[in-house]
Amino acid sequence: MDTMGRHVIAELWNCNTEKLNDINLIEQVFVNAALKAGAEVREVAFHKFAPYGVSGVVIISESHLTIHSFPEHGYASIDVYTCGDIIDPNVAAEFISDSLEAKTCEKVEVPRGMGPVTVQQFNAL
Amino acid sequence: MDTMGRHVIAELWNCNTEKLNDINLIEQVFVNAALKAGAEVREVAFHKFAPYGVSGVVIISESHLTIHSFPEHGYASIDVYTCGDIIDPNVAAEFISDSLEAKTCEKVEVPRGMGPVTVQQFNAL
Repeated sequence: MDTMGRHVIAELWNCNTEKLNDINLIEQVFVNAALKAGAEVREVAFHKFAPYGVSGVVIISESHLTIHSFPEHGYASIDVYTCGDIIDPNVAAEFISDSLEAKTCEKVEVPRGMGPVTVQQFNAL
Repeated sequence: MDTMGRHVIAELWNCNTEKLNDINLIEQVFVNAALKAGAEVREVAFHKFAPYGVSGVVIISESHLTIHSFPEHGYASIDVYTCGDIIDPNVAAEFISDSLEAKTCEKVEVPRGMGPVTVQQFNAL
């Protein structure tokens, strides 16, 4: 497989706080986001923190999706990393942002597997 | 928990190709990297691809560590994301780089949970 990948880093603010604390909903959103982008799901691991917060990952054939939610701040930190140039990680990131009802979604896209990472390569979206 | 986090993105090149295809070794390296940095391991999920490659994640109380290895290219794409300001993600990233015998380790550090992600915030290491 080619090493080239696209990594979207997204900061979601002012989300639905109940959703951010619902591990089952978040897991389903993340699996659906992967499938919607055309990815193949390989492993799923989510963890609920007490009293607040969910962390989790969906490993796909094409890399991964991760989340760390902070319901008490209405914030979710997400990453969608896809290898190859067929799948667009932004499709999954936007689906997640919409599903968590984020009022603000700040994203950057980082090229991966193409040599050194340089600041100039970052693409603010 | 405070939303502030540090996310190290590292591109490892010219690694030991046998290690890059050894799922058990990689899982152990990642768990040890998390522990060495002072993190608390919550979930571990790794997947071996045929014929080459390992993808995996260690979810820690303080966020996550991920890898996608490409043994045929001597390349591993890793992320170490830690919340709070106590744990230094670079400790884990360097441990992983050394363990996989990377000849080149290119890193950047991305601040997370502090508002919009801007290109200016990226810190090339």
